[in-house]
Amino acid sequence: MAFPTQVFTFLFGRPLATSEERAEHIGPLAGIPVFGLDALSSAAYGPEAALTLLIPLGLMGVKYIVPVSAAIVTLLTIVYFSYRQTIEAYPQGGGSYTVATENLGPHAGLLAAAALMIDYTLTAAVGISAGVGALISAVPSLQPHTLMLCLGVLALLTLVNMRGVHDTGVVFMIPTYVFTATLLIVIGVGAWHVVYAAGGQPQPVAPLPAVPAATAAVSLWLLLKVFSSGCTAMTGVEAVSNGVMAFRDPTRKNAKTTLTIIIVLLAILLLGIAVLCRAYHIAATDPGTPGYESVLSMLTRAVLGRGWFYYVTIGSVLVVLALSANTAFADFPRLTRAIAGDDYMPHVFLIRGRRLLYSWGIYVLVALTALLLIVFGGVTDRLIPLFAIGAFMAFTLSQAGMVMHWKRVGNVPRMVMNGVGALATGITTAVVLLTKFVEGAWITALLVAVMILFMRAVKQHYVRVAREIDLDRPIVPAEVQEPIVVLPIDRWSRISEKALSFALSMSTDIRCVHVLTTEESDAFCDTWQELIAEPLRAAGRPVPRLVTLKSPYRYVLQPVVDYVLNVERQTGFRKVCVLVPELVVRHWWEGMLHNRRSDLLKVILLMRGNRRIIVVNIPWYMEEG
Amino acid sequence: MAFPTQVFTFLFGRPLATSEERAEHIGPLAGIPVFGLDALSSAAYGPEAALTLLIPLGLMGVKYIVPVSAAIVTLLTIVYFSYRQTIEAYPQGGGSYTVATENLGPHAGLLAAAALMIDYTLTAAVGISAGVGALISAVPSLQPHTLMLCLGVLALLTLVNMRGVHDTGVVFMIPTYVFTATLLIVIGVGAWHVVYAAGGQPQPVAPLPAVPAATAAVSLWLLLKVFSSGCTAMTGVEAVSNGVMAFRDPTRKNAKTTLTIIIVLLAILLLGIAVLCRAYHIAATDPGTPGYESVLSMLTRAVLGRGWFYYVTIGSVLVVLALSANTAFADFPRLTRAIAGDDYMPHVFLIRGRRLLYSWGIYVLVALTALLLIVFGGVTDRLIPLFAIGAFMAFTLSQAGMVMHWKRVGNVPRMVMNGVGALATGITTAVVLLTKFVEGAWITALLVAVMILFMRAVKQHYVRVAREIDLDRPIVPAEVQEPIVVLPIDRWSRISEKALSFALSMSTDIRCVHVLTTEESDAFCDTWQELIAEPLRAAGRPVPRLVTLKSPYRYVLQPVVDYVLNVERQTGFRKVCVLVPELVVRHWWEGMLHNRRSDLLKVILLMRGNRRIIVVNIPWYMEEG
Repeated sequence: MAFPTQVFTFLFGRPLATSEERAEHIGPLAGIPVFGLDALSSAAYGPEAALTLLIPLGLMGVKYIVPVSAAIVTLLTIVYFSYRQTIEAYPQGGGSYTVATENLGPHAGLLAAAALMIDYTLTAAVGISAGVGALISAVPSLQPHTLMLCLGVLALLTLVNMRGVHDTGVVFMIPTYVFTATLLIVIGVGAWHVVYAAGGQPQPVAPLPAVPAATAAVSLWLLLKVFSSGCTAMTGVEAVSNGVMAFRDPTRKNAKTTLTIIIVLLAILLLGIAVLCRAYHIAATDPGTPGYESVLSMLTRAVLGRGWFYYVTIGSVLVVLALSANTAFADFPRLTRAIAGDDYMPHVFLIRGRRLLYSWGIYVLVALTALLLIVFGGVTDRLIPLFAIGAFMAFTLSQAGMVMHWKRVGNVPRMVMNGVGALATGITTAVVLLTKFVEGAWITALLVAVMILFMRAVKQHYVRVAREIDLDRPIVPAEVQEPIVVLPIDRWSRISEKALSFALSMSTDIRCVHVLTTEESDAFCDTWQELIAEPLRAAGRPVPRLVTLKSPYRYVLQPVVDYVLNVERQTGFRKVCVLVPELVVRHWWEGMLHNRRSDLLKVILLMRGNRRIIVVNIPWYMEEG
Repeated sequence: MAFPTQVFTFLFGRPLATSEERAEHIGPLAGIPVFGLDALSSAAYGPEAALTLLIPLGLMGVKYIVPVSAAIVTLLTIVYFSYRQTIEAYPQGGGSYTVATENLGPHAGLLAAAALMIDYTLTAAVGISAGVGALISAVPSLQPHTLMLCLGVLALLTLVNMRGVHDTGVVFMIPTYVFTATLLIVIGVGAWHVVYAAGGQPQPVAPLPAVPAATAAVSLWLLLKVFSSGCTAMTGVEAVSNGVMAFRDPTRKNAKTTLTIIIVLLAILLLGIAVLCRAYHIAATDPGTPGYESVLSMLTRAVLGRGWFYYVTIGSVLVVLALSANTAFADFPRLTRAIAGDDYMPHVFLIRGRRLLYSWGIYVLVALTALLLIVFGGVTDRLIPLFAIGAFMAFTLSQAGMVMHWKRVGNVPRMVMNGVGALATGITTAVVLLTKFVEGAWITALLVAVMILFMRAVKQHYVRVAREIDLDRPIVPAEVQEPIVVLPIDRWSRISEKALSFALSMSTDIRCVHVLTTEESDAFCDTWQELIAEPLRAAGRPVPRLVTLKSPYRYVLQPVVDYVLNVERQTGFRKVCVLVPELVVRHWWEGMLHNRRSDLLKVILLMRGNRRIIVVNIPWYMEEG
């Protein structure tokens, strides 16, 4: 046992005592990376998702990215103001599940729960696949290994997270700031080029792939789809309002400042990328094919060339996207814990592992993420249609809940503000669901429905169990009644002697059961008389009854089980104790030399038994060596 | 449960009662197929194995097959007279294992046992692969599917045999007689052609492949190898002496008549095939390659053309070889049963399944045969170097055992006869082992050694267990002493009430163990006082002790196990009863909603416990619906 324990400790860190938990108290400087990572990193795939859908429009399509991005930033602003109010009202942390359950009732809460679980899984999958996409852009020869790279990153994240949250916080700061800074530099330098270039059309430093010719005309439907895909850039903005508690005093103010900075940075990134793509004529390339290069990679090359700065930028994109997947590792287990706390998920999600984290939440998240990556080949563009729906459903439910909250409190201006937010995000949810339905949103919708049904079934089960076993009355000092003891005995040995002695100490009503598998009369009856019945009678003890059972088909356990059930049926209220003697060997290979009948008997009795049948293991341990 | 039971019955037949077993009583007519199948079918691969090694000698090699076959038939005759004497001495059935153990001691017995187990496995593998070889000769397009065909035949044989011996006996008769008759016709017609052909060189009816030019010169070493390979034709001749009991009165005479007929038929087949191959210039073709055709196929074509008779002949060869594999299915489980009866093999081989056969013997045989077929690609020629060694080792040990038997009895002529047999087969064993060592005989030798070591280890274990648990003294009516009862209790519920009631009926020394995983003081202590301790005190009952255990690392089971071990260590001779309350749900999926702590606790207590710790399951069954 020592070896695996040490390996565990090396890989996942030493176990943490419950008392070692403490609330982290951070300010905006640390808050931006921790809570903004997911939101900011969305800038790396949101605009690209929109541009990919504009490929068929050719050079014309590149122009449309600017108004679409403007619309998204407008929506982002509305959501920003809404979430400021959530921070105000829920300083202890207002996740959509909590807000929806408290203000809209359990049905809305379950909808939010399902939407969030799916959204977190997709955050993990898209973060990883987009990060690997950045890597492939820099090193195109890796393209055939996309899926393997994705699964490798997932494995690495799992390892890091199994060590627990304490060790992961510090990893966030540097890459997030490097990512933001490099992108801002690209945007700043690019903007300078645009302003001072002839006719607002700057020359790219490194040559870009040619924009393919248009193959389709623009339509409102297409632009709505582009908008829907682009909205994935907004995922993650709810993080601050979920984690207000982590900020130091003045808590709400610090949280709001952090949220403001994150939203402003995200808006600059989204608009900057859109404007520069238009100015430099950067169209997306076909994802999942050998010629693929990410939009950010092309943009960075175009503005500043393929030097060391390019590699720093792409490197930070990769790391930040991988870490944004990490947000899901922090949030998913907390969410499932909260849901399990309300009995809507299996209680296993309540158990904190050795490193103070909810291990099962992580296992399930990893399994689902791996499944998504495998099914969609690790290609971001194929995952995008499933994404954003969950997030926007949760936004909408959260805002709608806040409307009810302010209504109850009687604060009309704030109610209107959150109402605008709920309306905007609600319409967006509908648009995303409709425009992406065939491409994959149906999967998300179906999963939401399935998970709601699952959670309700789980709740129903727990309610039923609680109704059956809960007890608040005192113990009834019942009449103590001797149990009937049944002891299967195949031959006279030290093992059966031990079991019989124990039986004699428990009850005076003992039935020793002996199964005859052959038709010849058995020598055991003589042994019984001579070595057991006589000595006990001589000692003035009650003599157990010997019951012989015939078994023409050589089944050994079936007659014993039938006998036990029969005894139970015939006797009134007394308990029936079945003693199961068992040889315990020291090594697993020795186990293969002995039959597993005692294990099997226990399982069968458990399956076919009832509340009055009690199974007693009488182990006989082999001596060492 | 109903569905699988019905499927079982359909596939494997209804279960058979022990009383349905009866000895089969047969005469020579039924005895020849039952006991001669294996021996006679060897004619289908023995000569071919020899001819394959003669390929490098070209046309010259075909001539050497006649003297080699003559040597093999001479050896066969010696073995025949030896086994007649075994039948005389062991009318109850004299297998090599029995004869060697009884006359030469347990070491020789183990050697025979190992040799026979390997030989039976190879009988199954070679029978199948040679049968499929015949099929491929007739339908060359099947050649790429050799291995799959072999495994398919194995699966079919397994199914037939899982139905038990009763249903398989009848299948043997017709194919064996068809096989023997068709081959005798081929040999007869062929001999007639040879005698009346010009210069003793008859014209083949269907054209034969050209004999390739010689690429090597003849050497003694090569001829010894050819002899060794040809000796595989002798495998199976011991069958009659193993099964004397199956014959009707006069048992020995019937057995001897049957053996005589089998040996004479086999000798005619071997010599006939050799002479005709020489006369028709039939050389073997390269096995495992697309141009392969079996010797018997070429011979039949040459003598009688490719008409319906050809297909009947090849069909009977296929069926008879597959059925010869069946001999292993009958003999291997009986052998392992005999060895397990002497405690040299796991006792699981003693268990008779629902169809009266030793199921585990069949499972192991099927697994080993499949392994051999897969490793050697289902090509007979690659299996041949492993074969025959086991059989000849067993022959030698059996004859040597008979020498000791006659010496003890004082019958010198018979002793000399068996001595000649032992010498001849012993020399052959050495020749086979030496000439085939590099090609594969080393595998057989190694396996024999490994299996002997395994069987001795098994025996040692059983002896140790028996020494420890065997008991022939009467029970000591021990002082009945109350056990100490330990009951882990997490909260007050109907489940814990049931367990506590049972504990109160068992003992007055009860310790209820409550684990505190958080540092806050627990509400359970108040519940305990109010709902348990007070009412019991009021009723004048002894009040159990409440033990609270702190668990900073949130482990729940560890503190309970430690406490139990501690109690056991501190108290003298009293037994420690651990009560494990357990919620039993009705469906497996409900099981996933509850922790498996009670199962885990039982396993840990079994692993870390000792003879004084007894585990009592207190199941609480959920009500239906």
